[in-house]
Amino acid sequence: MNFNEERKKRTEYIEEILRRYLPAQEGYQKIIMEAMEYSLMAGGKRLRPMLMMETYRLFGGKERVIEPFMAAIEMIHTYSLVHDDLPAMDNDEYRRGRKTTHIVYGEDMGILAGDALLNYAFETACRAFDEEGADCAAVGRALQILSRKSGIYGMIGGQVVDVKESGHAVSGEVLDFIYRLKTSALIEASMMAGAILAGADESAVHTIEEVAGKIGLAFQIQDDILDVTGTSETLGKPVHSDEKNEKTTYVTWKGIEKAGEDVASLTEEAVRELEKLPVGDGFLKELLISLISREK
Amino acid sequence: MNFNEERKKRTEYIEEILRRYLPAQEGYQKIIMEAMEYSLMAGGKRLRPMLMMETYRLFGGKERVIEPFMAAIEMIHTYSLVHDDLPAMDNDEYRRGRKTTHIVYGEDMGILAGDALLNYAFETACRAFDEEGADCAAVGRALQILSRKSGIYGMIGGQVVDVKESGHAVSGEVLDFIYRLKTSALIEASMMAGAILAGADESAVHTIEEVAGKIGLAFQIQDDILDVTGTSETLGKPVHSDEKNEKTTYVTWKGIEKAGEDVASLTEEAVRELEKLPVGDGFLKELLISLISREK
Repeated sequence: MNFNEERKKRTEYIEEILRRYLPAQEGYQKIIMEAMEYSLMAGGKRLRPMLMMETYRLFGGKERVIEPFMAAIEMIHTYSLVHDDLPAMDNDEYRRGRKTTHIVYGEDMGILAGDALLNYAFETACRAFDEEGADCAAVGRALQILSRKSGIYGMIGGQVVDVKESGHAVSGEVLDFIYRLKTSALIEASMMAGAILAGADESAVHTIEEVAGKIGLAFQIQDDILDVTGTSETLGKPVHSDEKNEKTTYVTWKGIEKAGEDVASLTEEAVRELEKLPVGDGFLKELLISLISREK
Repeated sequence: MNFNEERKKRTEYIEEILRRYLPAQEGYQKIIMEAMEYSLMAGGKRLRPMLMMETYRLFGGKERVIEPFMAAIEMIHTYSLVHDDLPAMDNDEYRRGRKTTHIVYGEDMGILAGDALLNYAFETACRAFDEEGADCAAVGRALQILSRKSGIYGMIGGQVVDVKESGHAVSGEVLDFIYRLKTSALIEASMMAGAILAGADESAVHTIEEVAGKIGLAFQIQDDILDVTGTSETLGKPVHSDEKNEKTTYVTWKGIEKAGEDVASLTEEAVRELEKLPVGDGFLKELLISLISREK
């Protein structure tokens, strides 16, 4: 397997799913469907749906019941970016080299497009109930995980603390809390939903949660490292923004060398845990390793 | 049955449910739980959960599976008000005589509190899967209705068109579209979810959707009438705001007399349809009639 080729292929498959689950652009409210597509189809690594799909496959999942959930998790991730970019939040004009949603559609539509994506994520995930061969209880359980991990005990909770504590130094404990909720929680939801929908048992789902937590943390620390070492061309966003905002990051907390070591060891632990589970085609392991050395 | 006493009692029961389903105020993200409670417990008629509960009872529902959905629908209604009040939207400083959420907690937390309430609504509704005696398929179906009617084909869709068309006159067709989506859709979701969770069949659920559509429309027209005839003391919000904003309303479209007649005839039709269904304790009928003569 050529990993890079395979990753490209699988990413294209995810893009196709996202397009398929986007609402048709029609009706008096058409502008909101346009804004949803604009923000959802802006590119990105599609890491969350990819991790979900790979975990689903790892546990032998072969049905389409996973697809609405893959679209849903990316909609949730996207809405959080749309709201995060708003003037009252980070006030960003560009993301991934393109104008942010509220710059293109106005601030009111930026707020509504975020709301629409969040709501439509659940509307989309609920379509899984109608998929052939769907296990109602598993879909219900996956919805419970998805909603919890994206809410105040997950992503939104992390975002709240991040916003509240911005502009001054925070303790390592608070930083860890923010990372676990803001970044890891959605990765946990992705992988746990994949496992649950494939019929994995409680104990395997718990292992997957642990693995995902480590991957999420490693991913966020790598983000902090890239803000120091990366270029704005490669990243498609300004670098050194953390330093400019005097933000406490894993790099300012532990130093860049220790940060890099922790990314490597967290990833190694995650891979080791994964190896205790059913054997897949090796793609998931390669994907995790590729995240350590990513440059964007 | 003394209707007013009974209504007070049932409203208090709903308030108790809302409190029970609010998240505990703890953790580094505590401020968001405070903002959620501030906005959710600001009073109001609790019309949506009440209609849900009454419809559930009408079809013989007796379990607690309805309660998380009652809390969820009021959370969705509340988040829409919180975001609607934001500076980039209606820019309102007061609602129900109290400062709006973003005025008290800041604009960033206003955005996040709305997001949190919407997300928590689904998280809360998903708790119904764990209720004793819950029918998984019925809970799934109720979630599908709830998410569809609150999203771009329902409440958000209506809100988008309302925002987009504000500041200039609109046709009767567009006005009708806005009312059906912005107001009726959530009332439809309330009553349909009540019917579905009580085990009503497809045809009864369809009748309930029709009834709820009429109630929603009558309710919104009465709102327009009160903006002309009411006082800000009674309403707890400024009056004549539609005139000031040169807004097309049902009153400017059809005239105040015809508007009043339509409220009455829509309500009458709704009551007549309801009378074909199982007989309840009469409370629901009285509630609908009381909405015509409401002064706030």
